[in-house]
Amino acid sequence: MLSKNKIKYIRSLEQKKFRKEENAFLAEGPKLVGDLLGHFRCRLIAATSGWLESNPAVQAEEIVEVSREELARASLLKTPQDVLAVFGIPQTDTDPSVIRHSLCLALDDVQDPGNLGTIIRIADWFGIGHIFCSPGTVDAFSPKTVQATMGALARVQLHYCDLKGLVGALDGNIPLFGTFLDGKNIYEEPLADHGLIIMGNEGRGISGEMEKLVTRKLLIPNFPQGRATSESLNVAVATAIVCAEFRRRMS
Amino acid sequence: MLSKNKIKYIRSLEQKKFRKEENAFLAEGPKLVGDLLGHFRCRLIAATSGWLESNPAVQAEEIVEVSREELARASLLKTPQDVLAVFGIPQTDTDPSVIRHSLCLALDDVQDPGNLGTIIRIADWFGIGHIFCSPGTVDAFSPKTVQATMGALARVQLHYCDLKGLVGALDGNIPLFGTFLDGKNIYEEPLADHGLIIMGNEGRGISGEMEKLVTRKLLIPNFPQGRATSESLNVAVATAIVCAEFRRRMS
Repeated sequence: MLSKNKIKYIRSLEQKKFRKEENAFLAEGPKLVGDLLGHFRCRLIAATSGWLESNPAVQAEEIVEVSREELARASLLKTPQDVLAVFGIPQTDTDPSVIRHSLCLALDDVQDPGNLGTIIRIADWFGIGHIFCSPGTVDAFSPKTVQATMGALARVQLHYCDLKGLVGALDGNIPLFGTFLDGKNIYEEPLADHGLIIMGNEGRGISGEMEKLVTRKLLIPNFPQGRATSESLNVAVATAIVCAEFRRRMS
Repeated sequence: MLSKNKIKYIRSLEQKKFRKEENAFLAEGPKLVGDLLGHFRCRLIAATSGWLESNPAVQAEEIVEVSREELARASLLKTPQDVLAVFGIPQTDTDPSVIRHSLCLALDDVQDPGNLGTIIRIADWFGIGHIFCSPGTVDAFSPKTVQATMGALARVQLHYCDLKGLVGALDGNIPLFGTFLDGKNIYEEPLADHGLIIMGNEGRGISGEMEKLVTRKLLIPNFPQGRATSESLNVAVATAIVCAEFRRRMS
C-alpha cells in the first residue's frame, strides 16, 4: 500500500524544485519503466500485482504492490498504467571533448517539454549520445519530457551547462552548426562527423550570443525554394531533418 | 461586450460536436488570426481595442471589442492573447486527381492534435497542398491542432475520406509510399514527384488494410544502421524526414 506521504512525494516530482531536492524523477508505464530500469538507480516501484508477477526479478530500493485505484492517486497521467517508478537523476560530467570525436546537440533555451522529449528520441535514433542544454532549457527530467522520450533517455546523456562557456572550452576548428533562415542550403554545404549542432528556442530561434559562435549557418530549404510558407519549422522537426541529413552523408 | 451566450458559443468550439453543428472553428492570437483572415470566412472577431486599432480594415460578420478580462473568459488558451476569431470550416471537394500530379500526404488515424498541427506545418513548408485523412484521424479544426499549425492551415487543404476508397478511385501506377521498420532505405530507393505518402497512427503505425495498398515500403535508417535504439520516430518527425528527402531529390 502507498502511504499518503508516499503519494505526495511521487506527485511532488512534477515540480522541478522537488526533483532537485530529491534528485529524483518519475516515469510511468510498463514500456518506459522497463526501458529505464538498469540504466538509472531505481528508488521506488509502485505496481499492480499483474506487473509484479510479470517482472519477478525487478530490482529497486522499495517495491510496493498497489491497486489500480492507489496507482491512479499517485499517477500524473490521464490514463494511469500498471506501474510507476521513481529513479535517481544521474550525475553526469560535462566533458566537452566528446564534441571533438562525435556529433552532439546543443539546445539554446528549448522551452516545450514535449519538444525536448522528441529531440532526445531523435538523438537516440541517430546515434547522438550527448545533448548539451543551456540553463534556460526546460528540465529533461520533467514528467512530460520523460514520457515523451519513450525510453530514449536511457541512451542519451543530458548536460546542463553554459553553452558559451562550453564552446569556449573547446579549442578552435570544431564545427558549430546552426539553422537560420539566411543560412546556406544544408544539401549543398559540407557537414561533419563531429562538432555541435545548435538548435534554438521555439519563439526566437538561436540567441544572438550563440549565433556569433556558429561557424556554419545552415538552411533547411522549403519547396519550391523561396516560396512563401510557414515562417519556420517546429524545433524538433528541424532537429530531425538536420540530424537525418548529417547521418545520410556519413552512411 | 461579449454576451454570456457568445462566450458559451466560442468555448463550445473546443468540442467536435459543436464545431460540426456550427460548421465553425476557433483560432487565437494576432499572428494566427492574421494568417487565417482572408483564407476562411470570418464569422466573429473578439479583440482588444489595441488590436482593433492596429487592424482597422479587418472584415468579419461580427466584430466585438472586448476587455482582456472578457477575452480571458472566452479563451481556451492558458495565456489569452489580444484577439480570437471564429471562422467557417471550408467545404472542400475530395478530388483524387491531385495525387496524379502532385505529392500528397495521407494520414491513417493520426490521433494527437499537436502531431496533426505539426504535420500540416511540415506540408506547408514542403509545398504539399493536400492532406487526406482517414475518418479516424483527429479533427484538423480542433483548437489544439489549429494553434499548432501556426497558420499553415490557410495554405494546406485537408480532406477527410475513406483512404481505401480514395486509393481505389485512382487508376494504377500511382506510387503509394509508407514507412515501415522492414522497408527499404529511403536514401537508396527511387522516389517520385507525385503520389501519396501514407503516415500511420502513433501507436500501431499504418493499418494492415492500408499496408496492403502501399507499393513502396520505405525505411528511415537509424545510425549506425541497425543499432538498437528507440523503436520508432514520432509520426510528425518521420513525416518531416520523409518529406524533406522527397523534396531534396526534386530540387
